[in-house]
Amino acid sequence: MTLRLGVIGTGAIGQEHIHRLTWTLSGASVVALNDINKDQAQAVVRKEGLEAKVYESGQELIGAADVDAVVVTSWGPTHEEFVLASIAAGKPVFCEKPLATTAAGSLRIVEAEIERGKPLVQVGFMRRYDSGYRALKKVINDGKIGEPLLVHCAHRNPSVPEAYFGDMPIHDTFIHEIDVLRWLLDDDYVSAQVIAPRKSRFAHARLQDPLMVLLETRKGRLIDTEIFVNCQYGYDIQCQVVGETGTASLPEPMSVLMRSEAKLSTEILTDWKKRFIDSYDVELQAWINATLRGEVDGPTSWDGYFAAVTGDACVEAMHSGNKVPISIADRPAFYNRDR
Amino acid sequence: MTLRLGVIGTGAIGQEHIHRLTWTLSGASVVALNDINKDQAQAVVRKEGLEAKVYESGQELIGAADVDAVVVTSWGPTHEEFVLASIAAGKPVFCEKPLATTAAGSLRIVEAEIERGKPLVQVGFMRRYDSGYRALKKVINDGKIGEPLLVHCAHRNPSVPEAYFGDMPIHDTFIHEIDVLRWLLDDDYVSAQVIAPRKSRFAHARLQDPLMVLLETRKGRLIDTEIFVNCQYGYDIQCQVVGETGTASLPEPMSVLMRSEAKLSTEILTDWKKRFIDSYDVELQAWINATLRGEVDGPTSWDGYFAAVTGDACVEAMHSGNKVPISIADRPAFYNRDR
Amino acid sequence: MTLRLGVIGTGAIGQEHIHRLTWTLSGASVVALNDINKDQAQAVVRKEGLEAKVYESGQELIGAADVDAVVVTSWGPTHEEFVLASIAAGKPVFCEKPLATTAAGSLRIVEAEIERGKPLVQVGFMRRYDSGYRALKKVINDGKIGEPLLVHCAHRNPSVPEAYFGDMPIHDTFIHEIDVLRWLLDDDYVSAQVIAPRKSRFAHARLQDPLMVLLETRKGRLIDTEIFVNCQYGYDIQCQVVGETGTASLPEPMSVLMRSEAKLSTEILTDWKKRFIDSYDVELQAWINATLRGEVDGPTSWDGYFAAVTGDACVEAMHSGNKVPISIADRPAFYNRDR
Amino acid sequence: MTLRLGVIGTGAIGQEHIHRLTWTLSGASVVALNDINKDQAQAVVRKEGLEAKVYESGQELIGAADVDAVVVTSWGPTHEEFVLASIAAGKPVFCEKPLATTAAGSLRIVEAEIERGKPLVQVGFMRRYDSGYRALKKVINDGKIGEPLLVHCAHRNPSVPEAYFGDMPIHDTFIHEIDVLRWLLDDDYVSAQVIAPRKSRFAHARLQDPLMVLLETRKGRLIDTEIFVNCQYGYDIQCQVVGETGTASLPEPMSVLMRSEAKLSTEILTDWKKRFIDSYDVELQAWINATLRGEVDGPTSWDGYFAAVTGDACVEAMHSGNKVPISIADRPAFYNRDR
Repeated sequence: MTLRLGVIGTGAIGQEHIHRLTWTLSGASVVALNDINKDQAQAVVRKEGLEAKVYESGQELIGAADVDAVVVTSWGPTHEEFVLASIAAGKPVFCEKPLATTAAGSLRIVEAEIERGKPLVQVGFMRRYDSGYRALKKVINDGKIGEPLLVHCAHRNPSVPEAYFGDMPIHDTFIHEIDVLRWLLDDDYVSAQVIAPRKSRFAHARLQDPLMVLLETRKGRLIDTEIFVNCQYGYDIQCQVVGETGTASLPEPMSVLMRSEAKLSTEILTDWKKRFIDSYDVELQAWINATLRGEVDGPTSWDGYFAAVTGDACVEAMHSGNKVPISIADRPAFYNRDR
Repeated sequence: MTLRLGVIGTGAIGQEHIHRLTWTLSGASVVALNDINKDQAQAVVRKEGLEAKVYESGQELIGAADVDAVVVTSWGPTHEEFVLASIAAGKPVFCEKPLATTAAGSLRIVEAEIERGKPLVQVGFMRRYDSGYRALKKVINDGKIGEPLLVHCAHRNPSVPEAYFGDMPIHDTFIHEIDVLRWLLDDDYVSAQVIAPRKSRFAHARLQDPLMVLLETRKGRLIDTEIFVNCQYGYDIQCQVVGETGTASLPEPMSVLMRSEAKLSTEILTDWKKRFIDSYDVELQAWINATLRGEVDGPTSWDGYFAAVTGDACVEAMHSGNKVPISIADRPAFYNRDR
Repeated sequence: MTLRLGVIGTGAIGQEHIHRLTWTLSGASVVALNDINKDQAQAVVRKEGLEAKVYESGQELIGAADVDAVVVTSWGPTHEEFVLASIAAGKPVFCEKPLATTAAGSLRIVEAEIERGKPLVQVGFMRRYDSGYRALKKVINDGKIGEPLLVHCAHRNPSVPEAYFGDMPIHDTFIHEIDVLRWLLDDDYVSAQVIAPRKSRFAHARLQDPLMVLLETRKGRLIDTEIFVNCQYGYDIQCQVVGETGTASLPEPMSVLMRSEAKLSTEILTDWKKRFIDSYDVELQAWINATLRGEVDGPTSWDGYFAAVTGDACVEAMHSGNKVPISIADRPAFYNRDR
Repeated sequence: MTLRLGVIGTGAIGQEHIHRLTWTLSGASVVALNDINKDQAQAVVRKEGLEAKVYESGQELIGAADVDAVVVTSWGPTHEEFVLASIAAGKPVFCEKPLATTAAGSLRIVEAEIERGKPLVQVGFMRRYDSGYRALKKVINDGKIGEPLLVHCAHRNPSVPEAYFGDMPIHDTFIHEIDVLRWLLDDDYVSAQVIAPRKSRFAHARLQDPLMVLLETRKGRLIDTEIFVNCQYGYDIQCQVVGETGTASLPEPMSVLMRSEAKLSTEILTDWKKRFIDSYDVELQAWINATLRGEVDGPTSWDGYFAAVTGDACVEAMHSGNKVPISIADRPAFYNRDR
């Protein structure tokens, strides 16, 4: 049985997903496309050798009889509309980050999905599918470090363009830690504090870089994360969980060990796209399989909503310098499942 | 376009390949099966949910009109027959190790394929598809360690059963290094020497363990490999290439870094099946893609033949204690291609 | 020329220093001892084979004509008195931590030394003499990571007895980071914040463990330090400095790399005494050499005072939950020297 | 009690030893010097601030009444004479490598010492005092890897001058492994084989580089050592012992872990002098202490003789291409002691 997919948005990430859905993964075929630039959508049909129809609008695509499920990879501000339409049509929908551009928008999706009565929405937080994070979660869950007490993280990029400024370290960068750490610890956040250390001379005028973010959780854990998007040396994601009996760290990406030029070294990636590239395949294959079973087993719209609220609290903390409480209702029973 | 496959042999490795061809990889479907145990073949059809016909004989399967290509995963002694039949039928064939049980048998396949005039055979040396070996080859090919001069390897298993004895350290274990190092160095072997160090008390009576194998190559490189199949501590594959300006080592498998119980540690695998599991997917996907293009771009029957001759020389060297020359004709132009 | 030393306090650390001054280091001899327990002092004379006189009081020892310099290793509350007496006598004095039990006491020593007009006091902050911290400082000073922006530290002990409680994580444990990080960064602190994460079940009732301490510096750097004295797995000191172009981490202690029992591992020390044992030799040899030259080139009484003020601020921050400013005058010119 | 030393030979290594005996170590003082260049000897007296007499000849120095023990750091061809003279005078003697320039010369020393009836000679094999090798030996002796079966070594230098050629890879370079591995394994050698791989383009005309040396031991262990003295990248000493239940590797020298320029790296030394610099201090302090006790507990003249015979066998094996037996009498009871 093959899952027939409609993809809304055929830009960079859209094209990558279409390619892997068609040429790498098993169990799905892309039968429908839509993009605000119709020519681009048609070019993708030709380039990927698809047997797919190009629709005039996302709404039309969602309504098409032969579309079993929807993939939303369009511009962020359009996500909410297309996800809500998919829910209304009763069709499973995979939506890239962000679920919506505001916490309020995410909450509207949560409410619509609960009202529809059936889990339909998965958000594209791919780090949960990274083999490194999964190995780390297994170590924690197997009790090998005891109860987690602290988490030390770093999210470093070599550099960012001037178009990256203001709140983007939170909403575009830290958002990944926000989601994956909640999942890793099976916990929720209760407060955020953001500290601005000495600014790097490589950070341009409208950006405070680096930042240190502190999150406290319901279970009392403290998470510190360094965000440093002009670190020059590479794209580097670090995560050390400190438990009652030991620590466990996210594996470094596999790399040839070199001895040359007076150094014993392994390579650090510089292109963020390569860091989690395998996890996209795992993520979408898992989504296909779960969708064929009639389930959602990845990040839910509730997770998207929690991430949005947390991000807003971090931004407020960054601007105020104060510790900001994160007040959110308990997770609705609708979203309970074994994780 | 889908490649329609017939699989001969539905034992352990056969079932694994059928599963990945059906549920993980893209571009192929299993439409025909054969096994000496017909019930088992039928059970696999049901278990994997195949729409596939079970044939009375491998020959019949090879001849079936809807079988585009053949996968041979039957008992070793039957490989030669099925590969020759596939060549005779002009059908691409993927054959698990060994290509044949003797060098003479492998040579018959080489000759038949050349006579047929078209590359059809790929041998299942999966290490060439391992991302670690590929990264290592890239480092060498990029000139980062200069001209390779020496290679230090180790092939260690935690333990072996009593049924593993005699020449099996060469034919079943070292065979993987034999192939992958030829490919890694783009070189051929000219001599073999085998030294028997002090025997481990964990090695049973009919097995010398560990062994040290020395191979010299046409380009003058020296390869030393420790084979130690009762090392107790894990399944551990090591490979360090020493070049004129530096060294490069096969990456350790990715693992969570732990601090616990007075140790800073990563895990070493104990199950060999997990070590190269990802490479099987890459190998077969590459085979599907190349076969659909009408090519063979993996290990050829010539490679299988070279491995068999080298293995025989190692066995002779093990028994005699002498350095044994490896005399083999130059690679036929038929097998030349960019590697 | 030999430096003739008087040692006040012949307990554990006193005996260790006497042994290394006598049997390991060059250029000094212990000629005078004092301890509140005179029998113990005499036993030490015999055990170490000293030609040394045992004095009735520390004051008497300090005044002895053949004592060129004084080593204070007595009970903490007596340090201030003996250091002040040494200053009054115009004799160089090496004082183990703490310089005094209060910041006010340390300031009295600073003032007395300045009034005396000659640097005489060195405080026993031995980490500055550890080869790992020295290598780290060299990397920073050589500009290999650019301007330091953040420092991530951890100070972990396997466990502590019930007698360790209250403010001791600051005054007995973090005091080492307080001094060594000032030296490492050539910077001073301006604020302290302390956060209490989820408490480990291994921490007894009167102790909050772990703690996270945040220090901000004059130059804008942010230092986060995890203090975790019941971490169970080992004595583990970590320090990563994040600069504008790279990071540098305190070396792990040298250890045999093992492959055994499915782990690739190095050992983590469990006994804190072994971690910096070599640095005591380096520290005291450097002190002997500088003293013979008529100089002080190690941690000064100003450093001892700064550490005390910072420790007090951390304790206040721990109790209040607030960020506490650290207000201290600029370093007097008296203490300026090339560092 | 102070050991009064006479040093014969005040060249580079002589001056280093005089400096450490005078300014770093405890328990000895240099009271007598001799050098073929008397002016140099006198300059050393001034530079190091010694109260020492400069003698006209080594023989005269050995005979001086106030010289308790002798340190021989003169030109290699003079070693035998001065060691024999020290034995004749009944004085303990520390002799830098080589003990003599021939195996026959070393044997003459052994015989003279046995005839004298008292252990007097220690040879300067300093690696036995390296903390890394000592930690490795402890791991083996503690049974943590079971019975050793194989040892894989590498001895790499960045480059050598043209004056380094011919047999020097054995006599000047491999000699260190020859001694330290006998000590590490508590074993003797029974055969040597040397293989010449492809020559590095950085090796000049009169030098085969790299080399692979294979040594077999009485207890059946096999040791393979790569000697590569133009490896370009650094001075790098590797040693992995493979035992029945695990492996243990010589620790890498301690180094700051860096993340910069897309690399995670530690430094590799390029100057061989720094690699084992600490071990010279330990070696000579141990020699002073043992000599004061009237013992020899370091490498004996027997060890020097065994190293010479093994070196000769390796050279013969290098020239012949054959495996060369190493025939040597059992260790005389005179040299038995707990090691």
